[in-house]
Amino acid sequence: MNVAERIKFNDDGLVCAVVVDHESNDVLMVAWMNAEALELTLTTRRGTYFSRSRGKLWVKGETSGHVQHVREVRHDCDADTLLVRVVQEGPACHTGTRTCFDTDARRLL
Amino acid sequence: MNVAERIKFNDDGLVCAVVVDHESNDVLMVAWMNAEALELTLTTRRGTYFSRSRGKLWVKGETSGHVQHVREVRHDCDADTLLVRVVQEGPACHTGTRTCFDTDARRLL
Repeated sequence: MNVAERIKFNDDGLVCAVVVDHESNDVLMVAWMNAEALELTLTTRRGTYFSRSRGKLWVKGETSGHVQHVREVRHDCDADTLLVRVVQEGPACHTGTRTCFDTDARRLL
Repeated sequence: MNVAERIKFNDDGLVCAVVVDHESNDVLMVAWMNAEALELTLTTRRGTYFSRSRGKLWVKGETSGHVQHVREVRHDCDADTLLVRVVQEGPACHTGTRTCFDTDARRLL
């Protein structure tokens, strides 16, 4: 069976991907994949996503150089979420912070 | 400003919440919150979500006893994803595994 067939994509053909730093275990970012992005992530081992705002595939770091070397990919019990473990080059966040959840301004509790 | 007003909920009024074990840093599960679930999570400090399948609020562990004591909540750079750090009582997954991503059968790479 094709790997992507094991995944339950939503009505927009997307699945949520939680991206974790393979060494620190910190959550770096959350993005979305369609079946093609998932296949490319698995075969090229570069974090590849689907941009909902631009409506197209997006290889993380293709312009910034902050690529992700993918070490492991898992799905959850419902097969509707992915956990992607990566070695991240440079900051994961487009704002320049190490993760997308850094800075006190992003803290609610 | 109301905390929930800082968050960009999707067209269904929901935001994705990544739930992390406060001690091990492992991703335990991914669930969804509406504004009410977020407010309850912040005020009661029990992980509270919105069940998309049942269409109603759901306090994690209300039947199983596997409650989540919430230690920290952050949003990401786009304010459309939450990171919830918890002390988890018992297994986080309804299948009985510690996290929703455990077991080799859930591994794609």
